[in-house]
Amino acid sequence: MVRLSVDVMGADAGVEELLKGVCLFHERYPECKFLIFGLESELSKALTKFSLPSHLFEAIYTPSYVNSQAEVLATLKSGMDTSMSRALHSVVSGQSKGVVSAGNTGVYLALSKSILKTLEGILRPAIVSQIPTCRGESVMLDLGGSLESSSKGLVQYALMGKIFCQKVLGVEFPSVGLLNVGTELQKGKESLKEAYEVLKHQQGIDFYGYIEGDDISKGTVDVIVTDGFTGNIALKTGEGTMRMMSFMLGRAFRSSFYARCAGWIAKPFLQDFKSYFDPRIYNGALWLGVRGIAVKSHGGTDAIGFSHALETAYDMVRMNIVHEIQNTLLERSF
Amino acid sequence: MVRLSVDVMGADAGVEELLKGVCLFHERYPECKFLIFGLESELSKALTKFSLPSHLFEAIYTPSYVNSQAEVLATLKSGMDTSMSRALHSVVSGQSKGVVSAGNTGVYLALSKSILKTLEGILRPAIVSQIPTCRGESVMLDLGGSLESSSKGLVQYALMGKIFCQKVLGVEFPSVGLLNVGTELQKGKESLKEAYEVLKHQQGIDFYGYIEGDDISKGTVDVIVTDGFTGNIALKTGEGTMRMMSFMLGRAFRSSFYARCAGWIAKPFLQDFKSYFDPRIYNGALWLGVRGIAVKSHGGTDAIGFSHALETAYDMVRMNIVHEIQNTLLERSF
Repeated sequence: MVRLSVDVMGADAGVEELLKGVCLFHERYPECKFLIFGLESELSKALTKFSLPSHLFEAIYTPSYVNSQAEVLATLKSGMDTSMSRALHSVVSGQSKGVVSAGNTGVYLALSKSILKTLEGILRPAIVSQIPTCRGESVMLDLGGSLESSSKGLVQYALMGKIFCQKVLGVEFPSVGLLNVGTELQKGKESLKEAYEVLKHQQGIDFYGYIEGDDISKGTVDVIVTDGFTGNIALKTGEGTMRMMSFMLGRAFRSSFYARCAGWIAKPFLQDFKSYFDPRIYNGALWLGVRGIAVKSHGGTDAIGFSHALETAYDMVRMNIVHEIQNTLLERSF
Repeated sequence: MVRLSVDVMGADAGVEELLKGVCLFHERYPECKFLIFGLESELSKALTKFSLPSHLFEAIYTPSYVNSQAEVLATLKSGMDTSMSRALHSVVSGQSKGVVSAGNTGVYLALSKSILKTLEGILRPAIVSQIPTCRGESVMLDLGGSLESSSKGLVQYALMGKIFCQKVLGVEFPSVGLLNVGTELQKGKESLKEAYEVLKHQQGIDFYGYIEGDDISKGTVDVIVTDGFTGNIALKTGEGTMRMMSFMLGRAFRSSFYARCAGWIAKPFLQDFKSYFDPRIYNGALWLGVRGIAVKSHGGTDAIGFSHALETAYDMVRMNIVHEIQNTLLERSF
């Protein structure tokens, strides 16, 4: 039996929608139990509509929560007793195996670092997630954990990303690429050039070399390594482009009566196409490099998306990824 | 009568395809003449199939050309007499009003800076292009001119981008956004925060503030300002995502016999949709901040795409963009 902690505060969709997500996850994984953290005023009301058997969850009411607009430093300094911090503490105390939150990303990452602590030898934790490509899925990191990254940090991302890819996508020997503005050796920032030199000689890494922005969706490599600033912008640019194209596709099939008829006939294939890029399937970014499983759900997701974030957390618990990463890094003495 | 210089070397498609592009452009703008630069061995052969009246063009044979794999520094040091450098010199000597090349981007930018020279007061030229959005088109810069940018450089990009947007998209008061990893004031690198403070108080700029990666395709702002590293990766990530989705859409309609039938019925709307994102329409990036019109065509484009790059150059000549930018910058004493 695995118990997961769920912070149900701070998401756009509201507590009830996230609890629906817990129910959806429970249907797929009835072996899991939950610690659910939130304000009594919101959580207790939402729980009246919650269909999960009462022995499978425990509701823990907290005096406050992290607002989606809260500033990182101010929140950390205040030392507030929030649903987010309590959920993280429940992992440290061993009450649960991992946390999922759809709340404020910056605060969640900062609290994860200060409560769970960073793994030994890790310079900076990274945010990692799966992304859709022409060839299936790849993983990309860092998606916004740190604004900049040293060459050593990039090499650590490559090692952590490789393990994540092996565990999550089941790729035995994942290829790793460094995101750059060109594939020629003389291109790019110094940190990239240094990381390139290290990775080229790194045993146990199938290093592809530099990749460019359009290689992400081509699926040129299994693991895309970049600093958090670039990764965050690349991820969101890709997501935005997918939304734009879905929107324009819908518009093309609403442009006339005949277009609507054609759209009706083509509906199953258009739906197949759209479902491949459904962002809810890819919901659930993991903090890699902290001493515990902390998964970030998109703040604007719905129940289906939230259930996928819970699945990511559960996958990581079962695959014991924290232990794997710590061992790999200690072996390599980074 | 406007004369444009065309470097037909170094593109994937070959000299003949680019000459076809010149013909397509000529059909739309019969008032233009051309100076065409290339190796005699390739150009003279291709010209035998060239249908343009001979009084409209002059072929200039050069002893060498810039290979697509050539290194920037080595090429500059060699001082080679290439089709690219000659085409640029023809603008300086007043023989033509602007250059278009589909050759090596890095070398082309470096040669443009050294031959055309940078405008007075400009820290670094930027690469600018139009991009498709949900609301029509926006412009984005820098797309790879420099790897990093100071706050002053970003402010200059904002001013140049505004003028480009006014001229090319006809937007009277373009909104300008700084690409960042979040919209909150405390987010981002120092150079972004400093540029934010300057732009907030800059008269004549409709400054929106920070935007995120997904705002690019939403069309949240008319002008997206970022450093060349981030801009290059965002542009290519967006292009790659468009290609991936077009590929997956085609695949969905090839999945079965019924799918093919539905695809046949839906064809006009699928084509409408695809044509909106046709990268050839957006082909033609401009170097902003140099003393002359130098347009870069995508190296992998075809005749249609190349004709659009020529159109961009011609638009810029007619709109006298170099003069406009120089005046604006001198007025603001940047």
